[in-house]
Amino acid sequence: MESKEIGHHISQKFNKELEDICNKVLTMGGLVEQQIEMAVKAFTARDIELAELVIKQDNQVDALEMEIDSECTQIMALRQPTAFDLRMLIAVIKIAREMERAGDKAERIAEMAIKLSSTDNQFDHKYELEHMASLIMEMMHGALDAFARANIENITEITGKDVNVNREYENILRRLITRMMEDPRNITRALDIIWAARAMERIGDYACNISEHLIYMVNGEDVRHLTQQELEKRMKTP
Amino acid sequence: MESKEIGHHISQKFNKELEDICNKVLTMGGLVEQQIEMAVKAFTARDIELAELVIKQDNQVDALEMEIDSECTQIMALRQPTAFDLRMLIAVIKIAREMERAGDKAERIAEMAIKLSSTDNQFDHKYELEHMASLIMEMMHGALDAFARANIENITEITGKDVNVNREYENILRRLITRMMEDPRNITRALDIIWAARAMERIGDYACNISEHLIYMVNGEDVRHLTQQELEKRMKTP
Repeated sequence: MESKEIGHHISQKFNKELEDICNKVLTMGGLVEQQIEMAVKAFTARDIELAELVIKQDNQVDALEMEIDSECTQIMALRQPTAFDLRMLIAVIKIAREMERAGDKAERIAEMAIKLSSTDNQFDHKYELEHMASLIMEMMHGALDAFARANIENITEITGKDVNVNREYENILRRLITRMMEDPRNITRALDIIWAARAMERIGDYACNISEHLIYMVNGEDVRHLTQQELEKRMKTP
Repeated sequence: MESKEIGHHISQKFNKELEDICNKVLTMGGLVEQQIEMAVKAFTARDIELAELVIKQDNQVDALEMEIDSECTQIMALRQPTAFDLRMLIAVIKIAREMERAGDKAERIAEMAIKLSSTDNQFDHKYELEHMASLIMEMMHGALDAFARANIENITEITGKDVNVNREYENILRRLITRMMEDPRNITRALDIIWAARAMERIGDYACNISEHLIYMVNGEDVRHLTQQELEKRMKTP
């Protein structure tokens, strides 16, 4: 983390502990980003091996969350932090949780990739999710980048994309319902695509949640449950 | 909370603060339980007014979560708690988050109740979800009761019910897919029932998560990502 906030402690050891935690969050974030990317690729390219790798790697994400959680708690008990440090540790626990959930959704997309690859290639589902996939990957990457820099200046650009993700999800849903109605033999397959689309839509939500935790971390404000408009207004007010 | 753990502090004010937090969690829990119950009732009885009430009340749940969160952080900063107190505050932040998500799912069920009530009564969806609904309400109630007593002795009974919830969800899904295949005119309606069923299934997961946070609170162990069998074994080992 490039923030000036870290590195100001008299105890060199405390500085080091906080830096280590941040690095671990970034490692976890990188892994989750990779998991999402691989899951999407496995889904669109019908790559079973890649999908299996995503499922196999999910326990690494889970393990990292537990480590981060436990280290934050230990630092809280030993160092009794206040102000920015305390907010950072609380935010980190919450961010790690959101990332773990995003990892679960990547696993879900991978599971659907495997299910779909075993059915006949009656209709191509590749194009269905591509746009939404790129949106959620941008959001997740943006959120992690903001964390790395402890900088929330452009945070509403990330949360602002969620409207597009939701709109895209509704479109996919509508298109798939039409296909189901056209031919009932499409139903099971279409539902599996819907589950994958739903998982992606949730990843967008988690990226928004991470953004909200970052705002809390940096300026101490709890901005949950605000609309995008309200959030933009709040972030402009000094 | 009846726990002997609270009430041992030299500072009467600190005791009071922790007690207040616990009471607020119980209030929030009671509200979420009520929301779930009303949403299920609105869904099965096609009661639009009740569904609208659930949606309207969700911001009370959200507001309580934010209050609990902020009070826990303040206590951490001012009292610099350790051991049980620190674990309790961290667990409470997490438990409140799970309850807020459960409240969101109750809202989702209520939304589906409203959508379904506007369609013609071509097939009765009442019986579809009743069994699953009673299971998740038992789980949520059990988890809150365990929190109120700070007692995790029978916690695996709660988490053990999740297998039944998942099985029930799979059954509902299968039955509804059959209905969709039988008559494509059922598709939209069946999907709305699936969304409600999915929301209930997730509430079961949140009750399990709350149970896991309680285990951490009481004995300091992080039992996430264990199977039910592993958890039962762990909880038996003194």
